[in-house]
Amino acid sequence: MAHRKRHLFVCVNRRPDGTPKGSCAARGSVELHARLKDMLKQRGLAETEVRACTSSCLDVCWVGPSIAVEPDHFVYGRVGEGDLEAIVDGLERGQRVERLVLQPADFELPKELKALEKAEKKPI
Amino acid sequence: MAHRKRHLFVCVNRRPDGTPKGSCAARGSVELHARLKDMLKQRGLAETEVRACTSSCLDVCWVGPSIAVEPDHFVYGRVGEGDLEAIVDGLERGQRVERLVLQPADFELPKELKALEKAEKKPI
Repeated sequence: MAHRKRHLFVCVNRRPDGTPKGSCAARGSVELHARLKDMLKQRGLAETEVRACTSSCLDVCWVGPSIAVEPDHFVYGRVGEGDLEAIVDGLERGQRVERLVLQPADFELPKELKALEKAEKKPI
Repeated sequence: MAHRKRHLFVCVNRRPDGTPKGSCAARGSVELHARLKDMLKQRGLAETEVRACTSSCLDVCWVGPSIAVEPDHFVYGRVGEGDLEAIVDGLERGQRVERLVLQPADFELPKELKALEKAEKKPI
């Protein structure tokens, strides 16, 4: 196998149920990764073009499920099963699915979670 | 937290003991990841510069432990505890540690493992 042109890193971090910021696995990312792997294989992209890996926390739990797309170095967020077709189409054409691309503000812990963290005096 | 300038993805895939091609976790990658995280924090790089994540198999088991460096899109291989200082120094300076960078031939399953796979008629 060659070094693939792109790597997807699907966060599969799981936090305990009820964690305020949630986690990608609790939002279904394990299943998303498995489906992505299948789709890439079916489209003939898996062996040379794109490898779909799982990863630990990408630090954007509140907008998960999140997927780091490298070497393009952007992150898809709030990804659902219904987005995978567009994501794989995009990989085939070398295009991003703009509506899913996280913006700078998405990388910041939302205000209400910041307030909660301050009140609890520990990471939430 | 901002989107870090770089992500390291340390393969922590573990295969059963005795698997011919071995695995990164069996070669100590879980400990390497933990140490890298500590070092990045100590050097003040963790919050904005570099995030060290774990990942599933990067498909170069035979030259593991392996670490994908993104968005530079190269892979460090055969990484040992003694290499981490040079890796983190390199991240600080924006330089690669050339002796650890996997070359195109490293991405191919070695001949002896290919022969074994052929003999066993299944992935090894």
